[in-house]
Amino acid sequence: MNFPTWMSAIQQRTESALEAALPSSGLAPARLHEAMRYAVLGGGKRVRPLLCHAAGSIFGADSAVLDAPAVAVELIHAYSLVHDDLPCMDNDVLRRGKPTCHVEFDEATALLVGDALQTQAFQTLSNRLSGIAAARQLDMLHLLATASGSRGMAGGQAIDLAAVGQQLTIGELEYMHIHKTGALIRAAVLLGAHCGEAMPDALEHLGRFANRIGLLFQVVDDILDAEASTATLGKTAGKDAAQNKPTYVNILGASEAKAMASKLQQDAHDALALFGEPAVRLHELTDFIVERNF
Amino acid sequence: MNFPTWMSAIQQRTESALEAALPSSGLAPARLHEAMRYAVLGGGKRVRPLLCHAAGSIFGADSAVLDAPAVAVELIHAYSLVHDDLPCMDNDVLRRGKPTCHVEFDEATALLVGDALQTQAFQTLSNRLSGIAAARQLDMLHLLATASGSRGMAGGQAIDLAAVGQQLTIGELEYMHIHKTGALIRAAVLLGAHCGEAMPDALEHLGRFANRIGLLFQVVDDILDAEASTATLGKTAGKDAAQNKPTYVNILGASEAKAMASKLQQDAHDALALFGEPAVRLHELTDFIVERNF
Repeated sequence: MNFPTWMSAIQQRTESALEAALPSSGLAPARLHEAMRYAVLGGGKRVRPLLCHAAGSIFGADSAVLDAPAVAVELIHAYSLVHDDLPCMDNDVLRRGKPTCHVEFDEATALLVGDALQTQAFQTLSNRLSGIAAARQLDMLHLLATASGSRGMAGGQAIDLAAVGQQLTIGELEYMHIHKTGALIRAAVLLGAHCGEAMPDALEHLGRFANRIGLLFQVVDDILDAEASTATLGKTAGKDAAQNKPTYVNILGASEAKAMASKLQQDAHDALALFGEPAVRLHELTDFIVERNF
Repeated sequence: MNFPTWMSAIQQRTESALEAALPSSGLAPARLHEAMRYAVLGGGKRVRPLLCHAAGSIFGADSAVLDAPAVAVELIHAYSLVHDDLPCMDNDVLRRGKPTCHVEFDEATALLVGDALQTQAFQTLSNRLSGIAAARQLDMLHLLATASGSRGMAGGQAIDLAAVGQQLTIGELEYMHIHKTGALIRAAVLLGAHCGEAMPDALEHLGRFANRIGLLFQVVDDILDAEASTATLGKTAGKDAAQNKPTYVNILGASEAKAMASKLQQDAHDALALFGEPAVRLHELTDFIVERNF
C-alpha cells in the first residue's frame, strides 16, 4: 500500500471511529451534541491519529485497538481548538474552512463543547481495550492526561497567552511549543506504541522522534501562517503576525526557519533508523508534515 | 468519633490531598498554577469528597486510597464552578466568599484553569491505586468520565442554559438536576464504594441512595438561594430568580419544596437501611445536606 492510500484509509477509519465515539445529535442535550459533532467531524487532516496508527504499526498493533487512543488524542486536540478560538483567547472566526464553534452556535455552547470533548476523550480511552493489560491502559490514560494538562498542552496555551507582545528567545519559543503542540503529538506516538506492547527502550526512542516532529510541526506551521493564504489553510492566515505573537519566522527569518525545518526533518528520520522498515509510515508522515499546505 | 470530628478530619485530609495533587505555584506556568490553586484550595465544604469517604467506609476502604477519587471528583466540581462563573455562562463575581477566578485573574486564564483542573482529575485518578485491581480502576475512570461529560454534568449545564426564561415542569427540572448536580454526586458515592471492592448489588443500592441525595442537594440549594443571604452563602444569593431560572421554589413554592426535601431525606435514609451501622456517615451526611446553610 502506498502512503496516500494508507493515509486515506486511516483518515476514513478515524472519521468513523470519531463518529461512533460522539453521542448522536438525536440524544439530549441535542444542541450540545450537535455542536460537539460540528467541532470534530468532517474536517482536519487527523495528523495525531495518523501518528498513533503509524507508531502502532511498528509493533504490529491491531488497528481496531489503535482507534481508541487515536480518537482520544483527536478529541483532546479538537477541544483545545474550540477553546482556543473563543473570544477571550484567539477570538477566531474561521477553522477548517467553517465558522468556529462559538460563531456557528454561541459562546456558552462552545465552552461546554470543549469541556465535554475533553471528557469524551477520557471516556473513550477508559473503555476496556481488548488485548491490552488493564495496567498498561491505566498508564496510557495517565500519559494522555499528563500530556494534556497544566504541565503539557494547557500549560503551553498559558505560556502562549503570556508571550503575546513579548520578545522571546528561540529557547523560550521552543519551550512554549514543546508544551502547546509537542506534548500531544508525543502522546499520539507513544499511545500507538503502547497498543503494540512496546518495551520501555523503544518508547524512549520514539519519544525522542516525537519531540522532533512536534517542533517540526510548529516550525512548518509558522512558515505556512506567514506565507500561505487563508483559503489554503482553512483558518485565518497571518494571524500570528497580526496578534504580535512570537513565531519561528519572525525570530529567525523565513530562510533560517526553513533550514531549521530541514534539520529537524533529518533528525526525525535518523531517530527512526533503528526501527528499520516497520517505521516506514512514521518516516513518510514526517515528510508529509513538512510538505503539507494546511 | 462524632460526626463533626469525622467531617473535619475528612475535610482536612482532602485539603492536603488537593494541595498535593495540584502543581506547585512555583512550577511553570506559574500564573496558571497559582490560579488553579486559587480556584480549588481554602474553600468549599467538600461535600463530594465526604460522600466518597463515607461510602468507602461502609466497605472498609482505606482512607489513603479514597483520597484519589475524592480529589478527582472535587477537581471536576471545581472546574465546573470556574467555567460556570465565566461571563458567557452565569457571569458571577463571587464564589466561596472570594472573587471568582476570572475576576481575580482574567477570563482566558480562568478558561485554562477549568480545562486543566478537569485534566488533573483524570491524571490523579489514573495514578495506580494500591490494592485496587487495574481493571476496577479503569471502570472507576470510566464512571467519572461518564458522570462528567455530555450525558452527565456538562450535559446538565447545557440543559440549564436552554432552560433560562423557560417554564419547566417539575419532571423537566428533575431531569436537568439529575445531570447537572446528581451525576457527580452519584459518582462520588460509587467511586468510594469501588475502593472497598463493593459488589454490583451494593453499588446498585448505593446508586439509588445517591440519586435521592443528588436531588435533595439541589432542592435545598434552591431553598437557600431564595432565603439565605449572600454573606452566609459566600456566593451571590437570589441569583436564580434574578436570572429567571426555574427552581423548585418557584415551581412548587417554598413550603412544597421543603416538604419535598423532607421526603427525599427520608427516602435516602431508607435506601441506606440494608447497610446497617456501617452506613452511619452517609446517614449523617444526608442530614447535613438538609441542615446546611451554605
